[in-house]
Amino acid sequence: MGQALAGAFLAAGHPTTVWNRSPGKGEDLVARGATRAASPAEAVRAGEVVVVCVVDYAAAQAILDRADPADFAGRLLVNLTSDTPERAREAAAWAAGIGVAYLDGSVMVPIQLIGTPDALIFHSGTRSAYEKYEATLTVLGGQSAYVGEDHGLAAVYDLALLDFFWTAMHGMVHGFALAAKDGVPAAALVPYLKANISLLESSVEGTARDLDSGTYPAEASNLVVEAANVEHLVHAAEHRGLDASALRGVLTVARRAIDLGHGADEWAASVVGIRDPA
Amino acid sequence: MGQALAGAFLAAGHPTTVWNRSPGKGEDLVARGATRAASPAEAVRAGEVVVVCVVDYAAAQAILDRADPADFAGRLLVNLTSDTPERAREAAAWAAGIGVAYLDGSVMVPIQLIGTPDALIFHSGTRSAYEKYEATLTVLGGQSAYVGEDHGLAAVYDLALLDFFWTAMHGMVHGFALAAKDGVPAAALVPYLKANISLLESSVEGTARDLDSGTYPAEASNLVVEAANVEHLVHAAEHRGLDASALRGVLTVARRAIDLGHGADEWAASVVGIRDPA
Repeated sequence: MGQALAGAFLAAGHPTTVWNRSPGKGEDLVARGATRAASPAEAVRAGEVVVVCVVDYAAAQAILDRADPADFAGRLLVNLTSDTPERAREAAAWAAGIGVAYLDGSVMVPIQLIGTPDALIFHSGTRSAYEKYEATLTVLGGQSAYVGEDHGLAAVYDLALLDFFWTAMHGMVHGFALAAKDGVPAAALVPYLKANISLLESSVEGTARDLDSGTYPAEASNLVVEAANVEHLVHAAEHRGLDASALRGVLTVARRAIDLGHGADEWAASVVGIRDPA
Repeated sequence: MGQALAGAFLAAGHPTTVWNRSPGKGEDLVARGATRAASPAEAVRAGEVVVVCVVDYAAAQAILDRADPADFAGRLLVNLTSDTPERAREAAAWAAGIGVAYLDGSVMVPIQLIGTPDALIFHSGTRSAYEKYEATLTVLGGQSAYVGEDHGLAAVYDLALLDFFWTAMHGMVHGFALAAKDGVPAAALVPYLKANISLLESSVEGTARDLDSGTYPAEASNLVVEAANVEHLVHAAEHRGLDASALRGVLTVARRAIDLGHGADEWAASVVGIRDPA
């Protein structure tokens, strides 16, 4: 990821200095015009915008600690390492302590999209710093977005989207697995699954509105009926010898929301069961 | 649902006879030209295509048992009651026993779409019967589809699609709930969630191909990295006091697939963990 980010700066004509923990890495960046720094301190001093992207925040902090606080004077530190909102806030506190402007970012696309107009990177932290360097940061991802002053927010957006994505990907694989037990190939379900995904897309706004308002007025169906559907799914999966623990989790929160008085409400009311774990 | 189905036949100009367990129901259908049968037997004898749609198969069977097996001679019975594949197969065995052609259907759309070109109804069972009456059945739903001779298949398709849908809807609400804990309104996530849904849609074919072939070659990422992401999600949710039992289920099957040697494979390989419950 670090190489892709440095490559995007080079491609856009920015003077770029690179440093990597593994001395051999980055040869092709140097061949493309990057300067290799001999140390993190030298890399920090080399430019106005300092981008760090490593495996986690502990690794990032270990590298940043090899520079002197004075090296960061007048610079913007952009941490694109993927970690938790809590770690991002700790890093922001450290940055505030040494007086460096700090943005925390979450890269939302795979490496091959870095530097393209389609790449989404969330940034959070010092608004004035983002605004000053927005054009530079947009070089890394054309869809870059500033999401707020709280340095943890980029990671929060990241988590919320991954939460949906991996849960849905599990549901996709699980649905295919269920059908396969009765001899239905996944390919036969593809067009119908895509229609289902359209339905999902058309329910995003309404679900968001319900959650933001805290009211969940039912339209076509309600949580009691939907929870009964999920219960059938659990039984059908387990009857076929499949793991249904995620579906059981879905059923648990839906039932809890029903117990809390939301049986006649929309599916979005299951949030009440999510917020009130046993 | 029964009223909507009968109404669609009437709207298409089919002579339609109705019977309901609650004597008062169906007044408006009679006003629109339907004949009211005095008994299930009379309703069965009234036409070539007999459609039943009630709360479950036990209720359907109780009604069908009130007619004489001879009443069904030469007719097609179409059961659009929503239930399990196992129940559909039991009903098919009963129908075979009395010698009536039988189709089992699953209505995949809400009541208000019945009778429209967009309505999807899956049918399974006797192929010749479906082909003979396809035009009639398409009156109920323009997207009607025949999915195979096994009478349980319509319900299998239904289950597989609902499995994906409700799991994904849970993920959507859960992602919104997670972000809300850090002050992010659901509305702020809507455009990004929609982009995520596009990504989901673009992964359907590849995932189906992997599952049908039983090979899961990794491209951008792999199951070890993705399971680590899911683990972060579990911790982030629980750290915020949210129920994470569905995510824990997702993590469980991903880890099991890794333990079974699929760590370097694509997410689709998590199916191996689903198929091998603890």
